[in-house]
Amino acid sequence: MRYARQALRWNGWGSSEVSFDTRGRDREVWEFVAHAVGLDPLPSTPAAPFEKVILPEPRWTPAILAGLIATTSEEQVKTDRYERAFHALGRSYHDMLRLRSGTLRSAPDAVVYPESTDEVLAVLAFCDAHGLAVVPFGGGSSVVGGVEGSDGLEGSRRPGHRGVVTLDTTRMSRLLDVDPVSMTARAQAGIYGPSLEHELGERGFTLGHFPQSFEFSTLGGWIAARGAGQLSNRYGTADKFLVAASVATPTGLWTTRPFPASAAGPNLNHLIAGSEGTLGVITEATVKVHPVPETRKIGAFVLRDFEAGTAAVRALVQADIGAAMIRLSDADETRFFGEFRSALEPHGTASKLAEKALGLAGFGDKCVMMVAFEGEARKVREGFRRALSIATRAGGLFVGESPGRAWWKRRFEMPYLRDPMMDRGVGVDTLETSTTWSNVPRLYRAVQDAIRSATTRDGRRAVVMAHISHSYRDGASLYFTFVFARDLTREVEQWREIKDAASRAISEHGGTISHHHGVGVDHAAWLSAEKGTLGIDVLAAAKDTLDPNHVMNPGKLLPGPR
Amino acid sequence: MRYARQALRWNGWGSSEVSFDTRGRDREVWEFVAHAVGLDPLPSTPAAPFEKVILPEPRWTPAILAGLIATTSEEQVKTDRYERAFHALGRSYHDMLRLRSGTLRSAPDAVVYPESTDEVLAVLAFCDAHGLAVVPFGGGSSVVGGVEGSDGLEGSRRPGHRGVVTLDTTRMSRLLDVDPVSMTARAQAGIYGPSLEHELGERGFTLGHFPQSFEFSTLGGWIAARGAGQLSNRYGTADKFLVAASVATPTGLWTTRPFPASAAGPNLNHLIAGSEGTLGVITEATVKVHPVPETRKIGAFVLRDFEAGTAAVRALVQADIGAAMIRLSDADETRFFGEFRSALEPHGTASKLAEKALGLAGFGDKCVMMVAFEGEARKVREGFRRALSIATRAGGLFVGESPGRAWWKRRFEMPYLRDPMMDRGVGVDTLETSTTWSNVPRLYRAVQDAIRSATTRDGRRAVVMAHISHSYRDGASLYFTFVFARDLTREVEQWREIKDAASRAISEHGGTISHHHGVGVDHAAWLSAEKGTLGIDVLAAAKDTLDPNHVMNPGKLLPGPR
Repeated sequence: MRYARQALRWNGWGSSEVSFDTRGRDREVWEFVAHAVGLDPLPSTPAAPFEKVILPEPRWTPAILAGLIATTSEEQVKTDRYERAFHALGRSYHDMLRLRSGTLRSAPDAVVYPESTDEVLAVLAFCDAHGLAVVPFGGGSSVVGGVEGSDGLEGSRRPGHRGVVTLDTTRMSRLLDVDPVSMTARAQAGIYGPSLEHELGERGFTLGHFPQSFEFSTLGGWIAARGAGQLSNRYGTADKFLVAASVATPTGLWTTRPFPASAAGPNLNHLIAGSEGTLGVITEATVKVHPVPETRKIGAFVLRDFEAGTAAVRALVQADIGAAMIRLSDADETRFFGEFRSALEPHGTASKLAEKALGLAGFGDKCVMMVAFEGEARKVREGFRRALSIATRAGGLFVGESPGRAWWKRRFEMPYLRDPMMDRGVGVDTLETSTTWSNVPRLYRAVQDAIRSATTRDGRRAVVMAHISHSYRDGASLYFTFVFARDLTREVEQWREIKDAASRAISEHGGTISHHHGVGVDHAAWLSAEKGTLGIDVLAAAKDTLDPNHVMNPGKLLPGPR
Repeated sequence: MRYARQALRWNGWGSSEVSFDTRGRDREVWEFVAHAVGLDPLPSTPAAPFEKVILPEPRWTPAILAGLIATTSEEQVKTDRYERAFHALGRSYHDMLRLRSGTLRSAPDAVVYPESTDEVLAVLAFCDAHGLAVVPFGGGSSVVGGVEGSDGLEGSRRPGHRGVVTLDTTRMSRLLDVDPVSMTARAQAGIYGPSLEHELGERGFTLGHFPQSFEFSTLGGWIAARGAGQLSNRYGTADKFLVAASVATPTGLWTTRPFPASAAGPNLNHLIAGSEGTLGVITEATVKVHPVPETRKIGAFVLRDFEAGTAAVRALVQADIGAAMIRLSDADETRFFGEFRSALEPHGTASKLAEKALGLAGFGDKCVMMVAFEGEARKVREGFRRALSIATRAGGLFVGESPGRAWWKRRFEMPYLRDPMMDRGVGVDTLETSTTWSNVPRLYRAVQDAIRSATTRDGRRAVVMAHISHSYRDGASLYFTFVFARDLTREVEQWREIKDAASRAISEHGGTISHHHGVGVDHAAWLSAEKGTLGIDVLAAAKDTLDPNHVMNPGKLLPGPR
């Protein structure tokens, strides 16, 4: 399954046919949002229509275009406005601001759709020889500027590239091979999530990687950005499930081999995972797969506060009971989504009474924690039983399975809500980090404070909420979502202020600049502090080796033009 | 705890005070060995005594020596014969041949014992400025030439170094910090296994890393060589338990930070693990630790043959039941150690009868599999119950806990047996690899055949045996041990023939050249085929960046002088 590009939103989330379903309660939903961000009435801030969008002049010459076509075919090289606009940016809040503004300062000059590793190699060789930047693009769902169709040299004194070619991998979308004995699968990297899961499922397997972007992101993108799926406790982050890869580089094809473990020098898979298209294009990957789970169970608990909740998550993950997911919302997120759900689906008296009782029992500022198991029925049962005991001992109150069921059903739905918010003067953005358990409370407070003061500047109102969605023996991720009143006179500046404040708080309080979104353009300036000068030098040396003319995804990952 | 260098064998295994204990049954033991390798009587092949050993002339000048002393202190710089001989080679069979021969073609010119990261940096800067090769040395237990005190340029046309300095890390042996919340510990890298476990144990924790070299190897060495311990199924290989490291390089201090997970570009810990001292010296590491296990249980099973055994190991590891160890000996190893044990401790009639019954029941060519659990009593009990059921379903016959108990008691003892074998014209060597489950049978046969035909050349007799000691969802290691009649006229050539034949078989049949011993000198020539040209180029670029003058552990890891 591939998506026709015209069937997807060029300036918003997902399928053009799908919108956020307010279940006929439009008025209640938007009244709730208006109240949350203190805008009454919500302003109307529609996106510029596609016909009016101004794109930069394409820079290709007939010779360049003919050369590109020679690497693939005429049908595989696109230069029309829709393709250029579709591939201009990723899907971050910052990208939305720019896509909806009607003026794109950068866009690829051409988009090429190779259908094989050999064609990718030919495209790279051509672009390398002709000074064209290459931006690898899978689903294009990056929220950190990772697929921005620019040469990343704005404002630099370095001579720029002669043009930007976006290399769309989504025609390389076949599952190539499943090894049911070794439980690995080899696939072309441009395969979308649903298609990969469908094909694996027919053979009895799952990769189990479900990032929120799942429906509109690709295997290669997951690996390039070192992504994490909702069930990463069970199935691992991308760097964990990657077994081997083929990476087309300007210097030739770079491959790693599928060994379960090896002491034959450094493991270069870990240089591929997280390389974000700056070393080459991942064209194939071998990944670990698992039997399709027999069953699934998601229990929900409430905890008195985030500190108690954090301790419960830690107890669960360190007890190593095989949970597929442990997800803790802080009090703000619990309250926001509780109220949002009430607006969407009016709760009965029983539900209201239950809320009240919880309040009286000291859970007025409650945090919801969901714990999921999937796999063999026997193991799910046993794991769940253990979770119940550990969570209860940690002060958790079991509140049933319906919250988890509701979450599961709607887990890919929320990104669709951003577009109508954008239409109404409301901003919504997310960012994430991770740290060791002992540092979680300090980092949580610092980032929360930073986002809160940046979003509420000049008397604006905002909701700042957080959750822990990925946890490890030694620490956890922290994921912040913030909904705020946009400063319509300086939207991009406002975004940058919030982003800078949060990034500084992360950097200064022992967090990584990204747990699973990646670096892209947005975090590049923060990477040096995190990796150190020598760490950056080593990464730059790898790039110099594989991409000596720096045509691969310039401006992403590595800080500044070097 | 540190070992005084004089208290350790310079040309053999471990402590000078400890020898392999034949339990008063010397005659039976050596008759058994003589029979196994077809040498009757066993020849006498004693090692050259230390006093007669010929070392190369040291190349230091008074100025160089004074400079080295200035980086640390007079007391920390050694140039005596014992220190030079002790640090000349590692502890491989090939090393033993050379150490025992009485002539060392290479040895460090000086040995320096820094006591801090700053002192290491000073030593590296001095050596870098003065063209001296630096060989990092922890326990010195490498069995692949990883600590060879040479500049690796024998026979090359490249100008050599002006001398070789071995940097012994074992005075950096403190546990620095334990974070009981995040379950991590930070230690200086020169700490020996027993000392680290003792100090962690006092705080209620264990690293759980028990390679066979455990008593005489260090944390830094484990990480540098990407080692695996006997309980790696539970505690992970070195690259898995490493959280952060400090690496002193000629270019300065390179550090990584302790994030539980991150998408901020490639994970550089995986460039440190497996770097084998070629990029710098690991001076500190943060590692994941676990609570000291409440209890331990090791069950033994017999399987009809290696194929059935392999399937059982796979079923156990893919069922993800939390085993700490799954260890399967092939029929040859089962038989050899069974008979060896009989020689050592005469079995009673009951035991002989049991053997006979097993033979009649179709287990004549039986393979023993041990499955260990440790941790919380409840989980150990539950895991063991599951293992019993899975192993039985896979055709395993449970034979109790006493084989596992016996193995546990003697698990660090076997290396001591090599020295008396060396004294008697008997060779014993090991090598290992790993591959995906579907390729295990093919690789097993190919390597077994290669070793068998190389060890039995010219009518010699040999025992070639194998086990699976590390397993993963997608594959397993294969560890070969071979005991053979030495060709006393050409011992080194014989070793090289066996090694080449086995390495070729591994390389041509889809195995990695090492699962946990590392690359060192012995496997360097096989690395290109495994990593590919671009993979090697990337590693070389990292080296050029951190060690531009190539003073760090020359001749190790990377193939050939470049």
